[in-house]
Amino acid sequence: MKNCYKAGLIRVITIPDAEVAGIHGRLIMEKFPNMTVETKCISGYPEGLYSIELKNAAIPQIVEVAQSFKDIDVLIVSCAEDPAVPEIKNAVDIPVIGAGSSVAAIARRFGSKVGVLGITDHVPQPYLEILGKDLIDLGRPEGVVTTLDLMKESGVKAVEKLAMMLKDAGAGAIALACTGMSTAGVAKSLAKKTGLPVIDPVTAEGLMAYYECLSK
Amino acid sequence: MKNCYKAGLIRVITIPDAEVAGIHGRLIMEKFPNMTVETKCISGYPEGLYSIELKNAAIPQIVEVAQSFKDIDVLIVSCAEDPAVPEIKNAVDIPVIGAGSSVAAIARRFGSKVGVLGITDHVPQPYLEILGKDLIDLGRPEGVVTTLDLMKESGVKAVEKLAMMLKDAGAGAIALACTGMSTAGVAKSLAKKTGLPVIDPVTAEGLMAYYECLSK
Repeated sequence: MKNCYKAGLIRVITIPDAEVAGIHGRLIMEKFPNMTVETKCISGYPEGLYSIELKNAAIPQIVEVAQSFKDIDVLIVSCAEDPAVPEIKNAVDIPVIGAGSSVAAIARRFGSKVGVLGITDHVPQPYLEILGKDLIDLGRPEGVVTTLDLMKESGVKAVEKLAMMLKDAGAGAIALACTGMSTAGVAKSLAKKTGLPVIDPVTAEGLMAYYECLSK
Repeated sequence: MKNCYKAGLIRVITIPDAEVAGIHGRLIMEKFPNMTVETKCISGYPEGLYSIELKNAAIPQIVEVAQSFKDIDVLIVSCAEDPAVPEIKNAVDIPVIGAGSSVAAIARRFGSKVGVLGITDHVPQPYLEILGKDLIDLGRPEGVVTTLDLMKESGVKAVEKLAMMLKDAGAGAIALACTGMSTAGVAKSLAKKTGLPVIDPVTAEGLMAYYECLSK
């Protein structure tokens, strides 16, 4: 076993400020001290991939960015939609991790219905595939449209309200479905509020990336 | 975030030699340097819980052992059957991890049929629950009855043969279903041989335990 592993992380949004872009990587390095994370953004998408059309249009570029990393042990696509993850798997010979499939897989451990809590109108594909009939979807938090809304008190309250509704609907765990939820750091307070396990996307992708490093 | 977490680990077999009993814990501490693991065994089961009857008989004692740990962040039942995990969850107020549900959850990430490879005639319950119709079971490796058989060349060959059969039957990942496979250290060589992800039970339980520590 090596003492230090290196992950490449792709942000599927164009963020010119490297410190801002690097927040997911820093969250992972803080939690997994023997991993270092190098972050790269795609270009031309300042508002991120907020629709399926944009996601599909960006796939070739995401694959190119994936191929541009040097000497990494594992590659992370830091988005709950797992954009381009299948395509990257065919293009590189290292393990590829998406936030969405990581969250959904961890949520399976709890042996219960899983509430999906994101900010899009649709449930991201990996959640549908992995959680299947055990998934509970009650739409998105009221008034929350972009990840910036998660930084406002009204946004946080709306997220808390939806989490309680998911619990009332029978969820035994909550799978967060937007990496902006990690940046906003809502998982721990939601877990306290609901008494349920709440799966944080950036922690989840970091965990699965670390697992792949351990398995080398 | 704390710098060091403490896990309690229960071996559901009676092993008088503390060094031998502690091997799962040492494997976890090696992979997760900021976790320490304290190991305890149940008493009166020198051959482990090799049948469902023995497993059921041991539940009250496993719960007692679980309750006897002091100042731990997370509790691990180091067995693919997850014996007494539901009962312990009702008896303690910290997260409880079983090897079986951890392996099965991680295997879900790969979005494919999962081959289960253990040494018992039946597939452990957590694998059935979490993998459902995506599970492939072709029985146990020929001539392998106890974990000691995994230390023999003939046993390793039988495990490799079964792994290839699972691949031929459509498995896109292999979920090991006995923690003795971790002690024998077969996961990496099986992954190389088959070209598939092979989920190691002790690594998996350590990973999920670490995740729970991070989520505190």
